[in-house]
Amino acid sequence: MKKIGIVGGTGYTGVELMRLLAHHPEVEVVAMTSRGEAGRRVDDLYPSLRGHTDLQFTAPGESDLSTCDLVFFATPNGIAMQEAPALLQQGVRVVDLAADYRLKDLGLWSRWYGMSHASPEWVERAVYGLPELYRDEIRDAQLVANPGCHVTATTLAVLPLMGMDWINHGQIVADTKSGASGAGRSAAVHTLMAEAGESVRTYAAAGHRHHPEISQTLRVIAEREIGLTFVPHLVPMVRGIESTVYLPLVGEPSELPQRLYERYYAEEPFVDVMPAGSHPETRSVRGNNLCRMAIHRPLGGSMLVVSSVIDNLVKGAAGQAVQNMNLMLGCPEATALEMIALSP
Amino acid sequence: MKKIGIVGGTGYTGVELMRLLAHHPEVEVVAMTSRGEAGRRVDDLYPSLRGHTDLQFTAPGESDLSTCDLVFFATPNGIAMQEAPALLQQGVRVVDLAADYRLKDLGLWSRWYGMSHASPEWVERAVYGLPELYRDEIRDAQLVANPGCHVTATTLAVLPLMGMDWINHGQIVADTKSGASGAGRSAAVHTLMAEAGESVRTYAAAGHRHHPEISQTLRVIAEREIGLTFVPHLVPMVRGIESTVYLPLVGEPSELPQRLYERYYAEEPFVDVMPAGSHPETRSVRGNNLCRMAIHRPLGGSMLVVSSVIDNLVKGAAGQAVQNMNLMLGCPEATALEMIALSP
Amino acid sequence: MKKIGIVGGTGYTGVELMRLLAHHPEVEVVAMTSRGEAGRRVDDLYPSLRGHTDLQFTAPGESDLSTCDLVFFATPNGIAMQEAPALLQQGVRVVDLAADYRLKDLGLWSRWYGMSHASPEWVERAVYGLPELYRDEIRDAQLVANPGCHVTATTLAVLPLMGMDWINHGQIVADTKSGASGAGRSAAVHTLMAEAGESVRTYAAAGHRHHPEISQTLRVIAEREIGLTFVPHLVPMVRGIESTVYLPLVGEPSELPQRLYERYYAEEPFVDVMPAGSHPETRSVRGNNLCRMAIHRPLGGSMLVVSSVIDNLVKGAAGQAVQNMNLMLGCPEATALEMIALSP
Amino acid sequence: MKKIGIVGGTGYTGVELMRLLAHHPEVEVVAMTSRGEAGRRVDDLYPSLRGHTDLQFTAPGESDLSTCDLVFFATPNGIAMQEAPALLQQGVRVVDLAADYRLKDLGLWSRWYGMSHASPEWVERAVYGLPELYRDEIRDAQLVANPGCHVTATTLAVLPLMGMDWINHGQIVADTKSGASGAGRSAAVHTLMAEAGESVRTYAAAGHRHHPEISQTLRVIAEREIGLTFVPHLVPMVRGIESTVYLPLVGEPSELPQRLYERYYAEEPFVDVMPAGSHPETRSVRGNNLCRMAIHRPLGGSMLVVSSVIDNLVKGAAGQAVQNMNLMLGCPEATALEMIALSP
Repeated sequence: MKKIGIVGGTGYTGVELMRLLAHHPEVEVVAMTSRGEAGRRVDDLYPSLRGHTDLQFTAPGESDLSTCDLVFFATPNGIAMQEAPALLQQGVRVVDLAADYRLKDLGLWSRWYGMSHASPEWVERAVYGLPELYRDEIRDAQLVANPGCHVTATTLAVLPLMGMDWINHGQIVADTKSGASGAGRSAAVHTLMAEAGESVRTYAAAGHRHHPEISQTLRVIAEREIGLTFVPHLVPMVRGIESTVYLPLVGEPSELPQRLYERYYAEEPFVDVMPAGSHPETRSVRGNNLCRMAIHRPLGGSMLVVSSVIDNLVKGAAGQAVQNMNLMLGCPEATALEMIALSP
Repeated sequence: MKKIGIVGGTGYTGVELMRLLAHHPEVEVVAMTSRGEAGRRVDDLYPSLRGHTDLQFTAPGESDLSTCDLVFFATPNGIAMQEAPALLQQGVRVVDLAADYRLKDLGLWSRWYGMSHASPEWVERAVYGLPELYRDEIRDAQLVANPGCHVTATTLAVLPLMGMDWINHGQIVADTKSGASGAGRSAAVHTLMAEAGESVRTYAAAGHRHHPEISQTLRVIAEREIGLTFVPHLVPMVRGIESTVYLPLVGEPSELPQRLYERYYAEEPFVDVMPAGSHPETRSVRGNNLCRMAIHRPLGGSMLVVSSVIDNLVKGAAGQAVQNMNLMLGCPEATALEMIALSP
Repeated sequence: MKKIGIVGGTGYTGVELMRLLAHHPEVEVVAMTSRGEAGRRVDDLYPSLRGHTDLQFTAPGESDLSTCDLVFFATPNGIAMQEAPALLQQGVRVVDLAADYRLKDLGLWSRWYGMSHASPEWVERAVYGLPELYRDEIRDAQLVANPGCHVTATTLAVLPLMGMDWINHGQIVADTKSGASGAGRSAAVHTLMAEAGESVRTYAAAGHRHHPEISQTLRVIAEREIGLTFVPHLVPMVRGIESTVYLPLVGEPSELPQRLYERYYAEEPFVDVMPAGSHPETRSVRGNNLCRMAIHRPLGGSMLVVSSVIDNLVKGAAGQAVQNMNLMLGCPEATALEMIALSP
Repeated sequence: MKKIGIVGGTGYTGVELMRLLAHHPEVEVVAMTSRGEAGRRVDDLYPSLRGHTDLQFTAPGESDLSTCDLVFFATPNGIAMQEAPALLQQGVRVVDLAADYRLKDLGLWSRWYGMSHASPEWVERAVYGLPELYRDEIRDAQLVANPGCHVTATTLAVLPLMGMDWINHGQIVADTKSGASGAGRSAAVHTLMAEAGESVRTYAAAGHRHHPEISQTLRVIAEREIGLTFVPHLVPMVRGIESTVYLPLVGEPSELPQRLYERYYAEEPFVDVMPAGSHPETRSVRGNNLCRMAIHRPLGGSMLVVSSVIDNLVKGAAGQAVQNMNLMLGCPEATALEMIALSP
């Protein structure tokens, strides 16, 4: 059994990692750290885990994470860049679920995250954890930067079209709708049930941190500049992200987009291109690691529309992190990730 | 007191008309017709109206609507075009909340609604009931076609920009999110709580009936062809529509869009241009007749983004119908429409 | 116009008072105080009020509330008992929406609220603000203690049966279900959308502060000891409380309970006894000041069941406070409270 | 591999059976019948199953269910009593998820279900499928009547107290709160999102079909008559039932109830007695087969309160059916039922 640590286990990605790893046949979670909850049983904070773990949260200093084979950082932005390097230097492999190692451009990172980077040398060495693009690099990576949730839904939705000459890469629109769990488990007013229930709102319309992350990947794949407008919305549900991406056509597609998508993702275990005419629902991936999508060309016009759905806590966070872990540890990629979505 | 009739009063727009008109000082609802509920007290079907009405539903044939000053058709598409002409010929004024008289192009109408039109002569005479555009015509109209809900949110969001040479009118995207009440009060599977709860989905991505309606108005105002991509989404709430519209810039705006919007709508009683940097929430208009909106230019780039919110049953249906009625009957436009939104 | 002040206006009861009072023809809100938001426009915090107020929040010290005719305390428990006496001594009338003056037994109050009372002399003089019981006393009161939300729904549900010899007063059960707005607008984890959405839970099953408040009233009316078990539940919605109360029969009712209820509440403007066989829904009172209820005797057995619904922010808080204010100021009792519920 | 058939597979219990059985190592679903959807792929109706099944729905007549080892009836009430006997006579084992075989008293059954029973001889032979009570009988049963959802939550909540002399068995109250999926996947008005969203209501307060089912079991276990008042409520969520049961004390408990419960359920794989002071949440069992419960004695008074939660589609339907199937087929009881709840 490989030994796994989780730093910052009190948030939603922490409990979700526990849910997924509890039945993993080849790994064992040996430590979950938390400053605030040290000494408390994990299943006291998360009764859904009762019967599945005897772990207690431990203070960061008390846990010897260096004996772990792999450590997940499920911490707020800015923690992993401080604490991961010490582990990395001892040979521990790390998957960071926060944003610390996602952007290669350090200046850009500092502008969006409002701090200077504490371990720029590891930014360079980090592999971006989108298996659909970087599967081989992930296998060998010591440090994986797990992608953001809006990012995963949006990037997977458009990957097959990147670089196509009949797509206008300069006017792409991504309109995403996210459940409230994306905001995390922190006391806050704006995501109270009484504030976010029975209402829809845009947020960060002037610019969101996931924008440069999406652009960075698309630019590399498309091999050209990307003009992306990305506006997230908060909708009154707990889990799920839907991303509707609009890509203007500047010529006739060289191949029926439906077929192009089916071919592009044919071998991917966690991307489901639905039949032509489908409308994905977030509930069809609730609790599982799939990204389902459908592609439309409304009224046969000059716009392609791709709607993709993920569970923000699974393929958008903990599930993708486990997928990356599986690759890194040499386990079959889908291990512990084959549950069926909870629908209804 | 002016006498008002409501044809097809069992649906959500029917009860909403009753809610709004109950306190209107110059009109009285004298008849609500329903095939299925004839003989039943209105407040038995809608307990929220207990204490505010003694009306019973009457069968369509039994009600002498011809003595009404104005009749609302809150019926499914295809009914008003059959039944309104007889009333109109007797001088009764009519507001149709369905789609029968919204599209001027009969061929287009037939394609989208799957029937031929029963009273094309009245299509020509109908005034499109968007007071922000056609206030004067509505005052004198005998027949008003009340706009659709996605349509109202989207049209108002972009009106001030139509015709501006620095806007690319050929690649406009409107992504709307609607609560379940928009689907009406009909037994159905796909809008069951167990189907639509805790989930988001696109629908009609290949083309929706509100598309030609939006295009028709924008084309007239912009005085040029409009390339519009419109994709609606169902979100898990009861009331509200948010429309995020993306308009590509092809030059620098001749005026700061924020100021342009504020000026354009300065005199409008039911359009609220929020301060720069705002993010409208549907709950901020829950139960009232406002369309609130905010305009952004994300990252200072080449796209304008307008987010507008309405209550689909008020400004998107019954409220706008009452606003039109007020204009038609010479009442102050905001009569019975000044309630404050229910928030939280 | 009477001058009204609101202390602690940033919470949900504050905005709800503003919503209700905005159209009141005889009063004007002249001050809203807030420590945290002093200087901010009220409609910036609550965009739903845009167009209806130009007030700014003022710091408590800066506002001369002593010139007000009446001041609402919409503050957390423990504030009014400190700050209200100074105003009361200057002749200002006060409605406290918190719990400071609800319990007559100071020892009991201290046990449940964990502090000693700062103005016991006013506890004695305070009138309990349930108009259905104390209408005349409220008219003349200088200080009114506005009842709790679970309390209002539960007390009104059982009042007509109190003192009946055929009711076992020793084994009454009240099971209430409340929306999340009842927890107020404070940053917290347990009422986050991601925590409270799509889930139901009991809380305070071992004992809740509303228990002694309900018992105190019932004991007075029944003129005997009350054995009450009261368990509140949090359900995933924003507004509304449903209280199902179970009262064991120890004899045959002297009158058909349905008739007894109809007679008891015949003159009450804000209690609606629904027809026999009805099932009240919280949405049927959303946004209005009614308490609707229905009484059942399941299977003709030895238990009476009363289901009552209120909007926790209206009849359960701000609406009842305005009803009390109307009585105190000599306005018609229903002024500004006649809006129809928002349903659906 | 044992061969499994599902009759009436288009409802929520059908898809839930598929979800649970997809990873079961010892059984294979070979047929799902549906009158309305014959010929359609199962995963076309339920996209959540894409990638997990290639089955198509077949018409009831076309499927040779007699070759199955076990058949689940996931049909409306009144179907299994017609169709199951033919299979039973051929030696097929049957689990009926409807109510046909739950009540032993045929007269009572007819009164509640409004039809006469078509196979009374099998009523007698049916075993009631609550493993916590009838585990051994289920192992050998040819026909198992799977309990109702409100019934399971309520019965398990009180079992340990039945027959205790210090409990008043004559005045038990069960107040349950259920999500909308309990109403099934049938086109209906009252469970539309726009009707059931953002609202709570009682239903069937005068008497519900689950009442005699609960009473029947409790009477047998308590060995005395049971006076039960049971009132269900619809709350705005998709999955989950919470049952709060109130049991009057008529003497001091012979053992601390917390300890009694822990002992009673110590060996049960799917009952979780939470620590003293806990408040179960439905989300803590979302998607899994557990019944979690907590027992309180509010204010140390004369009432015991038990709050229990289940997922109505799992322990309240399909999960319990699979648990029964496992017992019948000799598989380990928890096979395919060990997933962790989806929380948040």
